[in-house]
Amino acid sequence: MFSSLDHSMMLRALKLAKRGIYTTAPNPNVGCVIAHGDTIVGEGYHYQAGQPHAEVFALRQAGEKAAGATAYVTLEPCSHYGRTPPCAEALVNANVARVVCAMVDPNPKVAGRGIAMLEAAGIEVQTGLLEADAQALNPGFIKRMQTGLPFVQLKLAASLDGRTALANGDSKWITSPAARRDVQAYRAQAGAILSTSATVLADDPSLNVRWQELSDEIQAQYPQANLRQPTRVIIDSQNRVTPQHKLTSLTGNTLLARREQDSADWPSSVKQLQCIENAQGQIDLTALMQQLVREHDINHIWVEAGAELAGGLLAAGLVDELILYQAPKLMGSDSRGLVNLAGLTAMSQVPELDITDVRTVGPDIRITARIKSPKE
Amino acid sequence: MFSSLDHSMMLRALKLAKRGIYTTAPNPNVGCVIAHGDTIVGEGYHYQAGQPHAEVFALRQAGEKAAGATAYVTLEPCSHYGRTPPCAEALVNANVARVVCAMVDPNPKVAGRGIAMLEAAGIEVQTGLLEADAQALNPGFIKRMQTGLPFVQLKLAASLDGRTALANGDSKWITSPAARRDVQAYRAQAGAILSTSATVLADDPSLNVRWQELSDEIQAQYPQANLRQPTRVIIDSQNRVTPQHKLTSLTGNTLLARREQDSADWPSSVKQLQCIENAQGQIDLTALMQQLVREHDINHIWVEAGAELAGGLLAAGLVDELILYQAPKLMGSDSRGLVNLAGLTAMSQVPELDITDVRTVGPDIRITARIKSPKE
Repeated sequence: MFSSLDHSMMLRALKLAKRGIYTTAPNPNVGCVIAHGDTIVGEGYHYQAGQPHAEVFALRQAGEKAAGATAYVTLEPCSHYGRTPPCAEALVNANVARVVCAMVDPNPKVAGRGIAMLEAAGIEVQTGLLEADAQALNPGFIKRMQTGLPFVQLKLAASLDGRTALANGDSKWITSPAARRDVQAYRAQAGAILSTSATVLADDPSLNVRWQELSDEIQAQYPQANLRQPTRVIIDSQNRVTPQHKLTSLTGNTLLARREQDSADWPSSVKQLQCIENAQGQIDLTALMQQLVREHDINHIWVEAGAELAGGLLAAGLVDELILYQAPKLMGSDSRGLVNLAGLTAMSQVPELDITDVRTVGPDIRITARIKSPKE
Repeated sequence: MFSSLDHSMMLRALKLAKRGIYTTAPNPNVGCVIAHGDTIVGEGYHYQAGQPHAEVFALRQAGEKAAGATAYVTLEPCSHYGRTPPCAEALVNANVARVVCAMVDPNPKVAGRGIAMLEAAGIEVQTGLLEADAQALNPGFIKRMQTGLPFVQLKLAASLDGRTALANGDSKWITSPAARRDVQAYRAQAGAILSTSATVLADDPSLNVRWQELSDEIQAQYPQANLRQPTRVIIDSQNRVTPQHKLTSLTGNTLLARREQDSADWPSSVKQLQCIENAQGQIDLTALMQQLVREHDINHIWVEAGAELAGGLLAAGLVDELILYQAPKLMGSDSRGLVNLAGLTAMSQVPELDITDVRTVGPDIRITARIKSPKE
């Protein structure tokens, strides 16, 4: 159904889409190539919310050469009038002959409408080329559209025997500078960084993206002038975070997830989120995640916190992916553990994962694993 | 100093040497290639203790063509009269013109004697070609010769958060069948498998090599008829192992490391080792290791035991390499830990390692790491 030429054109579109991974949030990354046979006449990608979509840039570049051409798009062209007119309409108006989409719109309520608009105009449409690669571009956007929940990456760091601090609390530094720089690249792709007041009180962290710590390769793709700070979300059910904590005065927004608001003199970048309590009087994590999607347009969350929140998120089934850094150290069984998961009495109850990547990062190891859903 | 031809000949000799890795213990693996330019006239490797050395096989094959040839040997030819006459003498008698050795004899007391014997006969000798590869062939033989201690590989298996069993003891199975087959390949290369009475009492394990569980590749290289069982060494200071435990009646020798011997009716394959106690009344691990080398010709030990022995060996500085299997599971902080290391109060006291290999084995991860000596 797809030729090797189709294949290489879609690969090019995927490559273009990736240029937006640090800046498009909460919008999806999309790339578009317009070609006659093996001659590319227009290219584009989405760079930032509010800016034109990939198809618009590609059509502008192609001009009249779009007529009769094939458009390769990593995501089904939109069919609705938003901040920009629908891209499906723009492709129709440009008289392209054929559209190849890597995947349909992940929102089940609108999936297929862009394709229908194209087909109604007599354009040949094909979908599913390099679909898995296209899905991997936008895990947050897709999960949000399909479930109303964000894509959650849980970052953990430990010794080879799964320990995060000695019994007396000493933990500086378990992982290497290389691993900490690697974390910066993950933060930079997320819509929000989630942590807890316990972490803020213990370490007074910045939880921001520090451009100068990004790799040369990322810096080259992502100019400092365009630096986007993920929203910091701090679970703070006891109102323990104060305006004196460093992260509340840094560039970028901070949301304090609380049961009750206080009347402290917060900078305008800090908002107090009114959260729902669960039966145990704790902030309901699932409701918080839904709230972050619905009210704050956050669909991709990077979690950096302690064993308690890690366990809570896992127990609630909210974690999609684990990013585990392991330092080549052994800290022993009286050191502090990585994940609090209470009450497991049989191996069959243990959360299971699929390893999707393992590599060394400087002297450390980085393991990427997808959480298996309980049904699997 | 070495040509690319020398290089490829030595690579061939190393490859030949590896054919003996399951059978030569306690002897070293050695390979030999005899060539005129790029024409190989003789090849050999050491296969089993008591059988001829690599050079002898290669010289037999070469016959009169050895005269004027270059001999590539992965280890300095021996200079002593043992079960076989010295290989250096055989090379001299065959009138080879040049000998290239990957490494000198690791025993500092005899290093260089074989080379001297060759040079005295007017043979050109060069050493150090692919030395690191040659060293990697014989970690046990080399460490024994240099220190009187065996090379110790500590095998551990845990969840991603470093846990070996749930709080109630449930642990079947943490790692996959693929990981357990991988363990068989390591056992098959070791001179001994070290464990404890605690493990024997808990699991009644076999601690043997099961030929049918080796990979097809290993089976092809290692016929079942030649199967060599590593000696089982069980630390049993309380004389808790009895003739009813499975491993005492299996093929292969078993050593029970004890403070006192009992008078049970043991099969002839089971011996009770009289061990030295340390100040705490426990079996002195360093003395045990020296005893295994000295009295039982064991220079490569594969450890499969619990958190207690793992911690004891690490604390005593006896572990050379960690082989850690991690299953893609999270078991939580009230589950059982991997290594007991008491009394660490600062990160600077934590044992550090160098990761030398990371890969997936079936659904699991296998991490290989070298223990850094405290001086590094």
